[in-house]
Amino acid sequence: MGTVERIQAVADKIKGFRDRGDDIVVVVSAMSGETNRLIAMADQMQGRPTPREMDVLVSTGEQVTIALLSMALNERGCPARSYTGGQVRIRTDNSHMKARIKKIDEEHMRADLTAGRVVVVAGFQGMDEEGNITTLGRGGSDTTAVALAAALKADECQIYTDVDGVYTTDPRVVDNARRLPRITFEEMLEMASLGSKILQIRSVEFAGKYNVPLRVLHSFQEGPGTLITFEDDNEMEDPLISGIAFNRDEAKLTVKGVPDIPGVASKILGPISRANIEVDMIIQNVAVDKTTDFTFTVHRNDFQHSMEVLQETAKELGARETLGDNKIAKVSIVGVGMRSHAGVASTMFDALAAEGINIQVISTSEIKISVVIAEKYLELAVRALHSAFELDQITSDTE
Amino acid sequence: MGTVERIQAVADKIKGFRDRGDDIVVVVSAMSGETNRLIAMADQMQGRPTPREMDVLVSTGEQVTIALLSMALNERGCPARSYTGGQVRIRTDNSHMKARIKKIDEEHMRADLTAGRVVVVAGFQGMDEEGNITTLGRGGSDTTAVALAAALKADECQIYTDVDGVYTTDPRVVDNARRLPRITFEEMLEMASLGSKILQIRSVEFAGKYNVPLRVLHSFQEGPGTLITFEDDNEMEDPLISGIAFNRDEAKLTVKGVPDIPGVASKILGPISRANIEVDMIIQNVAVDKTTDFTFTVHRNDFQHSMEVLQETAKELGARETLGDNKIAKVSIVGVGMRSHAGVASTMFDALAAEGINIQVISTSEIKISVVIAEKYLELAVRALHSAFELDQITSDTE
Repeated sequence: MGTVERIQAVADKIKGFRDRGDDIVVVVSAMSGETNRLIAMADQMQGRPTPREMDVLVSTGEQVTIALLSMALNERGCPARSYTGGQVRIRTDNSHMKARIKKIDEEHMRADLTAGRVVVVAGFQGMDEEGNITTLGRGGSDTTAVALAAALKADECQIYTDVDGVYTTDPRVVDNARRLPRITFEEMLEMASLGSKILQIRSVEFAGKYNVPLRVLHSFQEGPGTLITFEDDNEMEDPLISGIAFNRDEAKLTVKGVPDIPGVASKILGPISRANIEVDMIIQNVAVDKTTDFTFTVHRNDFQHSMEVLQETAKELGARETLGDNKIAKVSIVGVGMRSHAGVASTMFDALAAEGINIQVISTSEIKISVVIAEKYLELAVRALHSAFELDQITSDTE
Repeated sequence: MGTVERIQAVADKIKGFRDRGDDIVVVVSAMSGETNRLIAMADQMQGRPTPREMDVLVSTGEQVTIALLSMALNERGCPARSYTGGQVRIRTDNSHMKARIKKIDEEHMRADLTAGRVVVVAGFQGMDEEGNITTLGRGGSDTTAVALAAALKADECQIYTDVDGVYTTDPRVVDNARRLPRITFEEMLEMASLGSKILQIRSVEFAGKYNVPLRVLHSFQEGPGTLITFEDDNEMEDPLISGIAFNRDEAKLTVKGVPDIPGVASKILGPISRANIEVDMIIQNVAVDKTTDFTFTVHRNDFQHSMEVLQETAKELGARETLGDNKIAKVSIVGVGMRSHAGVASTMFDALAAEGINIQVISTSEIKISVVIAEKYLELAVRALHSAFELDQITSDTE
């Protein structure tokens, strides 16, 4: 939700759906800038604002929007009623600022829908068992929408964003990147965690868990968007690969010549984790001469700190040397199709080799293959892979 | 509540009370300008904003303040917890934008007080039986404070304002007007309804009904303020008069030579009331020659409209003539002391006569005498009465 004008535009859109006969529950976020304005005031009040009070404060952002949108709908002859998280009875645990939804009481909403009213719910917030206001953490409105769709067994949960769907890769890197008409939850999770910041990962997990079909749409452009749904066993042929994700936010650290004894991995990663540094990829190859090499990646901002911690550990373990590189990029191909098709990996490696790109690290999961390469080759690699897997051939208009 | 800085100052003040050992429940209003900002947005959304949604919207103003004040208190090592109207369970009827409090559940507040916490409650708002957010109407925070004080049987309900107490009359008119150390509820009601806009009338009524001692204090100046309380039977001598109220917002209308038959008053005032015009004073003298003269006052803004309505009625009733005057002022002396003292009225009339001020209309209640005079004599009359009743002799420092 942006400005007053944007709320008006959203009301027009909802009116259109109602006129076509749909029952609608809308979940809204705060107007743009509002949450930051509130947080800035809190920071003036208290060095580290009390989480309970922070939730009381920031939840007003969405409360303003639900009231304004309901008014705009009523003005259009489209009866609407607003609900805060507490009012719709979105029960959460009591972890302020990062609460999790436990239960939703959909009784009020059903009564309103039956009465022909649009239900407008404040996203991102709930209430714990004792009646304290909680929030799901920033961006949690997507999660609210999915949870309500699940509780109401909605036909579809539509998430309006600033993109018109999920693409085979970033169109800023590959000109002929295509919008995917559909993608599976698993693929979306792999794409999301690798840097496609379209949806909150938690909302996708939630949608998958509760079988809620999700559709990513553009807020103010027409179009079918991308449907996030289940693997369809009846499809004649799944596409091998759905997309290519990448990021350049990581740094790579390697410790060489570590004694290959049980528990060495946790001896290396324990101090990193205790320093509150999150680790992404972890790679250890088979031992040679009773020593092994151990590599992991961290966020680039944590590179310096991680190196210091690692050098300390390496000394204690009697390792040969430590190496670090923060000029790397991670490129991943994602697709449920690779489960049933051999040769995906070799197509990937061939394509990179043909461009003279050296692969530094490889890591795989069931539906994803990731490689680490020098950062300077990132765009080249993504384009080569996009072409090798014929992603520009995907027809975006189906579905 | 003004700005962020004002919230800090309020937190300092509360901390001072806590350090002295008081248990404290604070009721706060929205930051200055916030309610108007929200209303302006609502007006952009809907021609006549839905009252239910208006309440959802404007109640966020106080919600922001309770969170910020609680943070500021926590920062000062003074544990605090915020409550919205719904959370403290201020149950109201379902009259949105002008709801009335029906019941308060003080259980949560008591538990917090016992635990040594300051309870910070959003003023002006509540929740109806179905969980809808309601508001008490603008300025309703005073009423919330009194209602909570009554529910908790508080020692005193302190209302912080932009004046340091209730004065014998407006200090802008009479230089030596004195702050009253105490005043009764009845006197305060008469003073308030006559133009001393210090407290909401409803909050004073409420305080009187539930025996809550009210104290009017200045937000940022030290001082004992004015205690609004019950008539003290043990006082050796009540002051005859506590104060002089006045206003110049009224206009006077008279219809002369109306047939003196039963029901004529309602025939005259019925059309005025149906035109949504509020009437203040109503005076009818005994009939002479089977006709009577009938006078009433209305707000000056309604003068023109009232005259038109009255002329229509006068024609129907066969009255002799209608007169109107919007250059009048009303001056009233107020005091519970006049109950037991004869001669108050004659002191008043003598003082005005000594200044050559003609009294146009007189109206009395048990603790008030009001006269209507020409507007140009207003200041002169107030000063003459202030002096005649020796109000400049009141010692403000008692209590």
